[in-house]
Amino acid sequence: MMEFSPSLVGCVISEANHSFEMVRRSRECVINLPQADLVDVVVGIGNSSGAEVDKFERFGLTADVAERVRAPLIRECYANFECRLADDRLIDDYNFFIWKVVKAHAALSPKYPKTLHYTGDGVFMVSGGNISRRRLFRPEML
Amino acid sequence: MMEFSPSLVGCVISEANHSFEMVRRSRECVINLPQADLVDVVVGIGNSSGAEVDKFERFGLTADVAERVRAPLIRECYANFECRLADDRLIDDYNFFIWKVVKAHAALSPKYPKTLHYTGDGVFMVSGGNISRRRLFRPEML
Repeated sequence: MMEFSPSLVGCVISEANHSFEMVRRSRECVINLPQADLVDVVVGIGNSSGAEVDKFERFGLTADVAERVRAPLIRECYANFECRLADDRLIDDYNFFIWKVVKAHAALSPKYPKTLHYTGDGVFMVSGGNISRRRLFRPEML
Repeated sequence: MMEFSPSLVGCVISEANHSFEMVRRSRECVINLPQADLVDVVVGIGNSSGAEVDKFERFGLTADVAERVRAPLIRECYANFECRLADDRLIDDYNFFIWKVVKAHAALSPKYPKTLHYTGDGVFMVSGGNISRRRLFRPEML
């Protein structure tokens, strides 16, 4: 997350990925946020190439039509962020894309999804509990 | 994390922070990684200004001397990353700094620290369990 308003998200996409040239050319993408129960699908998707297989078919996922971009949403994910490229200055040097979220979709429950956070070496951290310290914040810092 | 070798880390530092001008001028910083038991200290640090108080004294923290930069390490943190500014191109537009980690320090245990992840509105997510799917990865994807 690089900015809240407008909503800017930065991410690295390896130039070895089939997605790299697709999103660089189209200047659009959808970022899909899976929950932990999809971990095997996440690993399968990351270890195959869209140049060789239809990943929706292979992994039993449903493509929904997006509102603001041509790329599809993955229905089975907790949230989907339709994005347009906001800044391409760091793509050549770092494969780093800065996206503007132009439409966001998120499930209403659970309030706190079990999210996956890759830590390397085949291991994912799963989001745990939550701690609120709202009362200790100055209002403008929340 | 933007790259592994060299180790590059990108982060936004609000221009409202006392740290912003300090690190922009010195082109150095230390990124300190606290565990969840320091949550009240983290919130206190984020809701006060180094222009007004000595945060080490106020929050009972110990400053250790770094090896490669002039900024101090926080001894009570699980890990410390000594950094030099690698790219300043996005500071003016996004307050986004790209750092090269020139020296890393990390505790040997626990293997999986309880880390804090701010989600907004005064709420932190704490890292939960781990899932290994190493056997499902192609070796070059790990």
